[in-house]
Amino acid sequence: MLSVGIDLGGTKIAVGLVDEEGRILRQAAVPTGKERPYREIIKDMAALTLKVIEDGGRELQDINYIGLGSPGVPDNETGTIVRNYNIDFRDTPVRRELQKYIDLPVLLENDANCAALAESIFGAARGTASSITVTLGTGVGGGIIIGGKIFSGFNHAGSELGHMVIVVDGIPCGCGRKGCWEAYSSATALIREAKNAAALNRDSLLFKLAGGDAAKIEGLTVFNAAAAGDPAARAALAWYYKFLAEGLANVINFFMPEMVVIGGGLSGQGERLLAPLRETVYAKLFYRDAPLTELRVAALGNEAGIIGAALLGRALPA
Amino acid sequence: MLSVGIDLGGTKIAVGLVDEEGRILRQAAVPTGKERPYREIIKDMAALTLKVIEDGGRELQDINYIGLGSPGVPDNETGTIVRNYNIDFRDTPVRRELQKYIDLPVLLENDANCAALAESIFGAARGTASSITVTLGTGVGGGIIIGGKIFSGFNHAGSELGHMVIVVDGIPCGCGRKGCWEAYSSATALIREAKNAAALNRDSLLFKLAGGDAAKIEGLTVFNAAAAGDPAARAALAWYYKFLAEGLANVINFFMPEMVVIGGGLSGQGERLLAPLRETVYAKLFYRDAPLTELRVAALGNEAGIIGAALLGRALPA
Repeated sequence: MLSVGIDLGGTKIAVGLVDEEGRILRQAAVPTGKERPYREIIKDMAALTLKVIEDGGRELQDINYIGLGSPGVPDNETGTIVRNYNIDFRDTPVRRELQKYIDLPVLLENDANCAALAESIFGAARGTASSITVTLGTGVGGGIIIGGKIFSGFNHAGSELGHMVIVVDGIPCGCGRKGCWEAYSSATALIREAKNAAALNRDSLLFKLAGGDAAKIEGLTVFNAAAAGDPAARAALAWYYKFLAEGLANVINFFMPEMVVIGGGLSGQGERLLAPLRETVYAKLFYRDAPLTELRVAALGNEAGIIGAALLGRALPA
Repeated sequence: MLSVGIDLGGTKIAVGLVDEEGRILRQAAVPTGKERPYREIIKDMAALTLKVIEDGGRELQDINYIGLGSPGVPDNETGTIVRNYNIDFRDTPVRRELQKYIDLPVLLENDANCAALAESIFGAARGTASSITVTLGTGVGGGIIIGGKIFSGFNHAGSELGHMVIVVDGIPCGCGRKGCWEAYSSATALIREAKNAAALNRDSLLFKLAGGDAAKIEGLTVFNAAAAGDPAARAALAWYYKFLAEGLANVINFFMPEMVVIGGGLSGQGERLLAPLRETVYAKLFYRDAPLTELRVAALGNEAGIIGAALLGRALPA
């Protein structure tokens, strides 16, 4: 049987027709238009789902269920998104609304948890008994997998790893606290530091690679300039690694998963990101002579959200 | 059937004969003498176990198994303590050594995990699906319970919550990192701050209650002086609460257990400890309108270690 995975993001809605091996047979995307009423957003989701099934040459009866990965806190029992800050969902009856258009079971999960599930079943953490996927993007997200199942706490609002304070009274975070890991280790934080470094060092390669406009710096710009030995880029990256390593060591001391998978845009750097990090993280662990948690970059890229949503039938009751 | 729980501490070895309702029928303790070779420590454990069984009017055939709660990382498959810093265990064959004297199955776990298990089955977290017990003592320990089972990671070295850094480059910790939660939120840290406050305020009630000797301040002294309105004690306690709340909010954002149980010596303060803490912690949570994790003080006191060790048969394969 096939299933459909929907990855609802702040920018776009991505939908994929997925087989039992986690392969996306067909996919499509439309802008989210997140300021619109939820009914319109969900209507677009439904239309895109039907299109993807049809384009794939299948019919509804070939599909097991629709899995939806959404930001926020899902309640799979009531079929609602309890709360989300990015898109304004509040006790929003997503399942009921989707089923107005499509007569299929609808499973709900948090989007970061879907990505973690996909990495655990068909990605970097395949074969592990426990893993945490940490996503370094606009923010820092997390998904906990134990024994092939998502663990998100008693109310499904857990694994907000990015909102673990690592510097009490530190850099203000969007959540209202100060010093959250996200304010130091998101891609946004790296880019912010690099922009400052470039603005202060206009003769740097970092500034040059951004075309003489610090505002144009992206994650890749920093890694490229640092690889070429640019001191401004190296300083920004050293700052970034310092806090990233502290947070990762916290996650491991706390939970001790068999593997930590690093996802999100920066994970495209692969070993360029991880190699300098591994020993620093290991040196901070409380038990350094027990078997060590493996660190790897994500294998499924941006498609992890769709694939994980399509796999929810294995991790949640249908 | 009965079982025996052993709580191996840095100061004493406590052994109890425990029934299926978690009641201690008989108990005894001897000093650990932790500088001695492990064979001597374990010989004392065995002798005390046999004595407790005999004093309870029972025989070996009435006993299911011996559960041992030890500091450090246990490996229940090989029957060894892989690593411990407090007592010098390193791949120490604890089971084999105990079985030289007593022909019973021996189950091993970390002592903080045993306490968490006891609180989860017969203590404050009875009836919850998930809980974390945080122990505020010499250090800050943690034990994670999911569905009645201990979760300690793939290598049993997890839930070192005290070694989550909350202030990068903060107060040095015994583990080698700087800014660990333990350096701010252990009973030791509260007493350290209160001693400093008393030494600087010799006309304070805090100093007076310690008999004019700041070195004699204990946790209780601080709570008593603060309750009487003493500014020095209140300042020390406010400092302590600030970091305790940050760490607890981190634990909840990360894991979202149904309940967090606070154990260790300070938990004897009960609601005097918790009441000022609850709202502060809740205000720091990422999702404040999802159902909230309950905060409670431990119910089993110092006996949680013995009881939890005696319950290991329910949480580990015998």
